[in-house]
Amino acid sequence: MFAKETYVARRDALKKLVGSGLVLMFGNNDAPRNYPANAYKFRQDSSFLYFFGQKREGLVGAIDIDNDREYLIGDDIDIDDIIWFGFVPSVNDLAHEVGVAYSAPMSELQKMVDQARSQGQRIHYLPPYRHDHMIQLSDLLGIHPLQTRANASVELIKAVVSLRAVKSDEEIVEIEKAMAIGYEMHTTAMKTCAPGITEQFIAGKIEGIANGLGATSFQSILSMHGEIQHGYPSPRQLEAGRLMLCDAGAETNSGYCSDNTRVTPIGGKFSPRQRDIYGAVEAAHDAVIDMAKPGLKWLDAHLTAARVITDHLKAIGLMKGNTEDAVQAGAHAMFFPHGLGHMMGMDVHDMEGLGQNYVGFDDEVQPSTQFGLNCLRCGRRMQPGFVMTDEPGVYFIPHLIDLWRSEGKHTEFINYDAVEKFKDFGGVRLEDDILITEEGCRVLGEKVIPYHIDEVEAFIAK
Amino acid sequence: MFAKETYVARRDALKKLVGSGLVLMFGNNDAPRNYPANAYKFRQDSSFLYFFGQKREGLVGAIDIDNDREYLIGDDIDIDDIIWFGFVPSVNDLAHEVGVAYSAPMSELQKMVDQARSQGQRIHYLPPYRHDHMIQLSDLLGIHPLQTRANASVELIKAVVSLRAVKSDEEIVEIEKAMAIGYEMHTTAMKTCAPGITEQFIAGKIEGIANGLGATSFQSILSMHGEIQHGYPSPRQLEAGRLMLCDAGAETNSGYCSDNTRVTPIGGKFSPRQRDIYGAVEAAHDAVIDMAKPGLKWLDAHLTAARVITDHLKAIGLMKGNTEDAVQAGAHAMFFPHGLGHMMGMDVHDMEGLGQNYVGFDDEVQPSTQFGLNCLRCGRRMQPGFVMTDEPGVYFIPHLIDLWRSEGKHTEFINYDAVEKFKDFGGVRLEDDILITEEGCRVLGEKVIPYHIDEVEAFIAK
Repeated sequence: MFAKETYVARRDALKKLVGSGLVLMFGNNDAPRNYPANAYKFRQDSSFLYFFGQKREGLVGAIDIDNDREYLIGDDIDIDDIIWFGFVPSVNDLAHEVGVAYSAPMSELQKMVDQARSQGQRIHYLPPYRHDHMIQLSDLLGIHPLQTRANASVELIKAVVSLRAVKSDEEIVEIEKAMAIGYEMHTTAMKTCAPGITEQFIAGKIEGIANGLGATSFQSILSMHGEIQHGYPSPRQLEAGRLMLCDAGAETNSGYCSDNTRVTPIGGKFSPRQRDIYGAVEAAHDAVIDMAKPGLKWLDAHLTAARVITDHLKAIGLMKGNTEDAVQAGAHAMFFPHGLGHMMGMDVHDMEGLGQNYVGFDDEVQPSTQFGLNCLRCGRRMQPGFVMTDEPGVYFIPHLIDLWRSEGKHTEFINYDAVEKFKDFGGVRLEDDILITEEGCRVLGEKVIPYHIDEVEAFIAK
Repeated sequence: MFAKETYVARRDALKKLVGSGLVLMFGNNDAPRNYPANAYKFRQDSSFLYFFGQKREGLVGAIDIDNDREYLIGDDIDIDDIIWFGFVPSVNDLAHEVGVAYSAPMSELQKMVDQARSQGQRIHYLPPYRHDHMIQLSDLLGIHPLQTRANASVELIKAVVSLRAVKSDEEIVEIEKAMAIGYEMHTTAMKTCAPGITEQFIAGKIEGIANGLGATSFQSILSMHGEIQHGYPSPRQLEAGRLMLCDAGAETNSGYCSDNTRVTPIGGKFSPRQRDIYGAVEAAHDAVIDMAKPGLKWLDAHLTAARVITDHLKAIGLMKGNTEDAVQAGAHAMFFPHGLGHMMGMDVHDMEGLGQNYVGFDDEVQPSTQFGLNCLRCGRRMQPGFVMTDEPGVYFIPHLIDLWRSEGKHTEFINYDAVEKFKDFGGVRLEDDILITEEGCRVLGEKVIPYHIDEVEAFIAK
C-alpha cells in the first residue's frame, strides 16, 4: 500500500476529470471455484486498488463529486468471521487508512444510489467483468445483468485510463519488483526445461515461485505448441529437438505485474531452422526497443515488427514480393496473427476490462478490422510513463495455413510449398516490458532474462 | 476420464432416482479474475464432470428423462479460437466420447427448457454457485438470479448425493493419486519450515508441487496463526518456537482431491506446552480412526473427539468438571469450534455446494445450532465407500476467549486464568482422509505424512 496521500491525490484527480455525479467503484468479492465457500485466490479489482488501496473483499468505494463526499462501503465482520478469518480492522478504519472520510454498511448502497438519481446525479461505474457485480448493478440500477457492461460510464472509463496509463515512479518501483520475480520464473523454466519433463511440472514450479512472493499475473502459457497463443501447460513430456514457449508473469503483493515470454530449445541447442525463425522474432523485438519513444504510434512499432519479420521470412523463402505491400495487405499475419503489445501495470493487459478502444486507441488511431491487426491492443502514441509489452512472434498454425492456402489467400506474398514443411515447427514469441521515458525507452527488470540465441544456449548449458 | 460406460451407468442410475423431468447440469465457464479475458485456472463443476466427464468450459448436459434423450449442449469453436486455444474436438465428438447421443448449440437451450415446461416437465438443476450460471438460469426460468439457488431441485440434489457419496474403486484409485501429491506437498512444507522463511514462500512451493501434477484442491492454509481457521499464508517470516499449521491438498487432473493438515514446530522441537496440546489433538485424531466403521454416526465420532480433547485439557488444567457434561454443554467448543470432518471426493468438501443438510445429515441426524457443533458438516451414519476427513483441532482464539470470559460462559468447565496464559499459543489441527470399508476404515495414502510427535521431530531433523 502506498501512503494515504497517494490515494487522496488520485481520487482528487479523478473528481476533476469526471466533473460531476456519483462514482461507484466495486472492489472484488471472493470468486467461487467449485462451491460457494471454496474460492479462488482473492484478486482485488485493479481500479478499486488504485483509488481506494484496500485489498479486503466485499468493499465498494463511492465518490459523490457534487457534494464532495467519499465513502468506503462494506460490512464489518463478527465473531464467527474472526474464528475463520482472523481479526480484521473495521471498514471505518480501512477508510481512514486511505483518506476516505465516511464509511457505510452495504445495505446503504441502494439508498445512496436512489438518492443520487432522485437528485439528478449521474451514476458512474466501470464495466463489470465479474457476474456477481453484474447482478448487484442490475439490482441497483434496474437493468438486466448482462446490460450493465454496456451501460458503464464512458467519462469514468476515460478518466481512469488517463490516470492509470501513466505510471508514477512509485508504481515503476513495484513493477520492477514483479520483474525480479519474473526473472526467477523464466530462468527457472529455462534451466528446468529438458526432454521427459512435463509442461505442467515446469509451469507448477515457476508458478510456485510467483505464489511464494505474490501471485501469477495470468495463467502461465507453457507449451511445445508455441503456435497456440494460449497454450496452457499439459501433462505431456517435453520432446528433444522441439521448442518450449513460456509466457508467464508475476504479480506483487501490492498488485503490480510482469509479463515476459521466452523460448527454450528442448535439449539445449537450436536447430538451424529454429535459429532462422527465432532470429526473425529477435530482430523484430530489438527493432521496437530501438525505436520506442514518446510520440511514436504503437501501431507503427507493430508495423515495423511486421516488416522485420517479413524481411526475415523472405530471406528464408517463406515469403516473397515487396515487404511494404505484404505488410499493408496483412500477409505476414498468417505468421504473426496478434498485436505487438499492450499496456501493462496493475493488470497484465492493463485496463483491458475497461475496453481496448479507450485504452489503446484514440481519435487519431482507430482499431483496424484486418486479420491480425484487429488483435492489436494498443495503437496510439506513446507518452512518458507508459509501460508496454514488446512481444512479436512467428507461428506455424496448421489449421490457419490450410485455411489460407485453400482460399488462395496472399499467394503473391506467401510460398505455401515452403511453409508446408514448417507445419511441425510450433512458434516463437519473445516478450519484454518497456517503460517509455522522456528520451526513449528502458527495458524493465534489473536483469534481462537471456534471449539472444547464443546467450540462451550458454545459459541453459551452465 | 473413465471409460464411456462409467458415465452411461451414472446417468442411468441418476435417471432412475430422479424419475421424470428434464435434468440440466451446468458445466463451468471460465471465471474472470481481473478482466474478462484473464481467467482463473479453469475448474470444471464436479457433478458435471461426474456425469458428463468432459473438462471443456461452456458445456451444459441435459437429460430428458421422460423421452429418454441425453444431450451435450455447447458451441463449437471457430478458426479464431483455434489460433488462441488450439484445435479441440466438436461438441458432438465430446458427447459421443461419454456415451451421449445428441448435441446441440447453446442457443437451443432456451427452446429446450420452454418446450419441456410447456409439456409439464419439471426442470431439475443443482444449486448454482457461480454467478454467471445464476444469470443464465434467471433468463431460462424467469426468476431473479439470486433466487436460483433456492429453486434448485431437491430430488436431483438427493439423487446426486446418493451416487457421489459412495466412492467406487476406480474413484478411490484417483483419490490415492491425489494423496500421493498431498504427501509431497506436506513433507516439503515440513522440511522447508524454518525460522526466517515466509509463510507465503512455503505455500508457493507446495502449491507448485500440486500445480505441477494437477492443481490445489483449495487455497492452502499455512500460518503461524493456527488459531485462524482459514489463515492464508502471509509474507511474515516464521519465528522459532512457534508452530506452523499447514492445511493443504491436491487435485488430480482427473478431478479428485486430497486434504491433510499437519503442524510443524518452527525450529524443529516441540516445547512441553506444545506437546501437551498437540497430544490432545493426536489422541482425538487416532480415537476416530479406531472407531470409524459402517453404521457409526459421524456425530458420535465428533463427540468422541470432543471428549478426548476435554480429558486432555482437564489433565493440563485448562478445563475442569465432568467431561460428558462439558461436551454436552459445548464448553470444549471454545477450543474446538469446528466439526470433526466432512466428505471428500471430487470436491474437497464433497458436494458442499449442494447443501450440507443433504450431504451430511438425514432424517435420523439433524444439524445442531449449538456453537461449534453447528459447524459440523456431516453427522449421519457411515457407509462403506464414504471418504471422510478426520480433523480435530485445539485453538486459542484471543477474541473468542475474551468474549466468553466477559460473558461468564461455561465457567464450571473452563479455567479462564489458566487459558489466559495460552493466548499466544496459536492452534493445532491434524487431518487425514479415511475410507469407510466393510469392516472399519482405512487411512488413505500409501505413505502417511508423519504426525506422531517424535516422528515429526525425527522427520524434519533428517
